[in-house]
Amino acid sequence: MRKHDTLAIPAPPSNLQEDFARMLKDEEGADVTFIVGDKSFRAHRHVLAARSPAFRAELLDPTKEDPTKPVKVDDMDPVIFEALLYFMYTDTLPHGCDLEKNATLQHLFVVGVRYGLDRLATMCEGKLCQNINEQTVAAALTLAEWYDRVLLKNACIAFVSSQDVLDAMKETNGFKHLMTRYPGVMVDILKQNLPSSIGVRVIYGRIVFK
Amino acid sequence: MRKHDTLAIPAPPSNLQEDFARMLKDEEGADVTFIVGDKSFRAHRHVLAARSPAFRAELLDPTKEDPTKPVKVDDMDPVIFEALLYFMYTDTLPHGCDLEKNATLQHLFVVGVRYGLDRLATMCEGKLCQNINEQTVAAALTLAEWYDRVLLKNACIAFVSSQDVLDAMKETNGFKHLMTRYPGVMVDILKQNLPSSIGVRVIYGRIVFK
Repeated sequence: MRKHDTLAIPAPPSNLQEDFARMLKDEEGADVTFIVGDKSFRAHRHVLAARSPAFRAELLDPTKEDPTKPVKVDDMDPVIFEALLYFMYTDTLPHGCDLEKNATLQHLFVVGVRYGLDRLATMCEGKLCQNINEQTVAAALTLAEWYDRVLLKNACIAFVSSQDVLDAMKETNGFKHLMTRYPGVMVDILKQNLPSSIGVRVIYGRIVFK
Repeated sequence: MRKHDTLAIPAPPSNLQEDFARMLKDEEGADVTFIVGDKSFRAHRHVLAARSPAFRAELLDPTKEDPTKPVKVDDMDPVIFEALLYFMYTDTLPHGCDLEKNATLQHLFVVGVRYGLDRLATMCEGKLCQNINEQTVAAALTLAEWYDRVLLKNACIAFVSSQDVLDAMKETNGFKHLMTRYPGVMVDILKQNLPSSIGVRVIYGRIVFK
């Protein structure tokens, strides 16, 4: 067998994402409607079920009386839901989905965790780490504690410990929320800034050095 | 805005293909059956329609009396149809689909062209080019002529022109078929081997030098 391998024809790039994005956009064959705020979205329940265990449980629940009834999504902005749907069909975020906007990013992170979309959650976690500043760090720490994301937490603590930002951080709404919910996180921050010979812990909500 | 971009979290790779491959395998929500030889396959008609204009025309034809009726595919090997379905959902070929086997490759190439899957057709065309030898070149040339694939044709002619293979090629079944169907292709081969001052063409099925 002689091989003629001097000629290489590059295959066109995959257009799977493009085709599925169009499938979502065209709504042809869509068999489920979501009502999100004042907007409605149509999608294909078996695509969503294939992509997310949370959607599978919601959409293919055999005990549901009327599976054709629109699904109401109460606690989400339509823009976030639209981005979520696009991600379900393509594993990417739509053009114009502004991850520089920290509120969008936080919502998408939460949605990623909630719907079992590890890739979305981790993409957002990485971006949240990059966006840490005096204004955002307390809210990011709260998210990290709530959803048990070690990388985000470490990035926040490293930021607070490495820069003179505690005063600015203390002024944000996020800080008050963080302290109410997770006072113990201050211990982790202090630990980074104290000589290792000094121990620190929280007893009855108060920070104690020993 | 200070950026904390020392920490980069790599997002997990896309699992879109994996999820859609499972969707095909599990057959959940499948709404069309194909009968291919002695095998049957279940799939999702709107996925196929989103991926191929030929499937769209076949499966979403509004004039069809009974759209739930199984679709009979007469002229295809079940193994090839299975690979085609997998490609529709993932843009890749399944494990165990042996592209080194020239017959498989030729069939998949034809299927790619027929169903408007340019990526599949071009992947196979590239592989057909690499697999050219004395045994395969005539059949590959026939395919190139029939489907008007310039790159494959050029690779075949370059192979025949650059090596002393005409005698071996003449003994293959493919060569007889090629000569019956496309006698003119010999002109292209000869042109590569003759000094440019000698003209050559086919008149009434015979090769004429001038």
